[in-house]
Amino acid sequence: MRIAVILAPGVPAELDFSGNTCVVIDVLRATTSMVAALDAGAKAIYPVAEPEDAWALRLQLGEDLLLGGERGGLKISGFDLGNSPREYTPQKVGGMLLAMTTTNGTAAMLLAQRSGAEPVYVATLRNAPAMARRLLREDRDAVIYCSGTGGRPSLDDIIAAGAIVSALQESPVGVELKDTACLAMAAYRQARKDIAGSLAATEHGSRLVKIGFELDIRFAAEIGASQTVGQFDGVMIRPAGHVLR
Amino acid sequence: MRIAVILAPGVPAELDFSGNTCVVIDVLRATTSMVAALDAGAKAIYPVAEPEDAWALRLQLGEDLLLGGERGGLKISGFDLGNSPREYTPQKVGGMLLAMTTTNGTAAMLLAQRSGAEPVYVATLRNAPAMARRLLREDRDAVIYCSGTGGRPSLDDIIAAGAIVSALQESPVGVELKDTACLAMAAYRQARKDIAGSLAATEHGSRLVKIGFELDIRFAAEIGASQTVGQFDGVMIRPAGHVLR
Repeated sequence: MRIAVILAPGVPAELDFSGNTCVVIDVLRATTSMVAALDAGAKAIYPVAEPEDAWALRLQLGEDLLLGGERGGLKISGFDLGNSPREYTPQKVGGMLLAMTTTNGTAAMLLAQRSGAEPVYVATLRNAPAMARRLLREDRDAVIYCSGTGGRPSLDDIIAAGAIVSALQESPVGVELKDTACLAMAAYRQARKDIAGSLAATEHGSRLVKIGFELDIRFAAEIGASQTVGQFDGVMIRPAGHVLR
Repeated sequence: MRIAVILAPGVPAELDFSGNTCVVIDVLRATTSMVAALDAGAKAIYPVAEPEDAWALRLQLGEDLLLGGERGGLKISGFDLGNSPREYTPQKVGGMLLAMTTTNGTAAMLLAQRSGAEPVYVATLRNAPAMARRLLREDRDAVIYCSGTGGRPSLDDIIAAGAIVSALQESPVGVELKDTACLAMAAYRQARKDIAGSLAATEHGSRLVKIGFELDIRFAAEIGASQTVGQFDGVMIRPAGHVLR
């Protein structure tokens, strides 16, 4: 299996989306929040592009659907939840449906799916080892898609991609790392002594610290805290099922 | 001073070209060959987009102008020199003018200059410490532009960018590394125990090994072997003069 990393939206990698597995990462904070929501018992998450799309879903599905997400890092007016993973507790989201819209992460997911990637997974640092195990069991070419920040490469996402690559590389299965995957692994290795500190030192991380979300960064940095891999089927994200071989 | 790295052509970085210093890198092999040519006493190098442009210059300037460059890694038919830095010896290029056209590096240089970067420098691993010293003396914001391979990020260029960033970061001058610069530094740190081996393991490097240019990679890996910084004035590349303060 070959592994490449899309360093930011629009940056060509050595593998295409089409026909390959895609792993979408927006570690600060969309995919961290989504994985937290699934861990907290949310039934499914609808990633949508705009707040209006979330409201339209609410009209359709009623009060069983909670609205979550951010613009400029802050909760959207009228929404039930922001984009802080620590909000996504069993008390709040257990048994519920969610619609989520965020600046970078949900856009990346929708793009990957529309570009023919199959399956599309949702990953973060918390589920990085679980994500790597799944990729190894499936043994297919995969692109790890870093959502970036406003179209630019975002080191926090690349560190998280590197955590998955590093876990893959430790396995005895033959994994061919393309240049971009080696690069992400280097970012992770530079960061791993102090993941939370490294995330907080990135440009995106330092902005989050400034607006009061330092605890979110610590939460996001807990590698291996979640065993849940999210899978996006083109409509909603749910925990991925067993690998059929 | 702030430092950002353009990971490949078209990848947005945290700093623009316009009004900023730009350092163009195509370590395998265009900028390595150009720096070697200047070290060997070439008077100036005209970077041109296409072989036809090189021939047009020859018509204009006559036999004092040598033609160098590659397509598909190999010497262009009728040209005097290929793109192997070891060809650019004092015997061959001393006192001469050169026109060079390569797939990625010369294109990057022309783009940086047309996008308003000023000054535009030509760097590689061999002159990385000299390049870093110059940037520190000038103390201006700078983007390091990795030429990439066919529009994709190329790890060899990012390692070379990281060598410059690493040298900058060791200085007592206040240098602000943007995310992309931290990423390049991580790539360099992962590679530095065995630079030649790391370059040869990249996708571009392994292609060069296959077509017989392994010695070029060893030559390119000699960090600090050159004290010459090339400067592109929009027409030609010459050794950069003293820094005026």
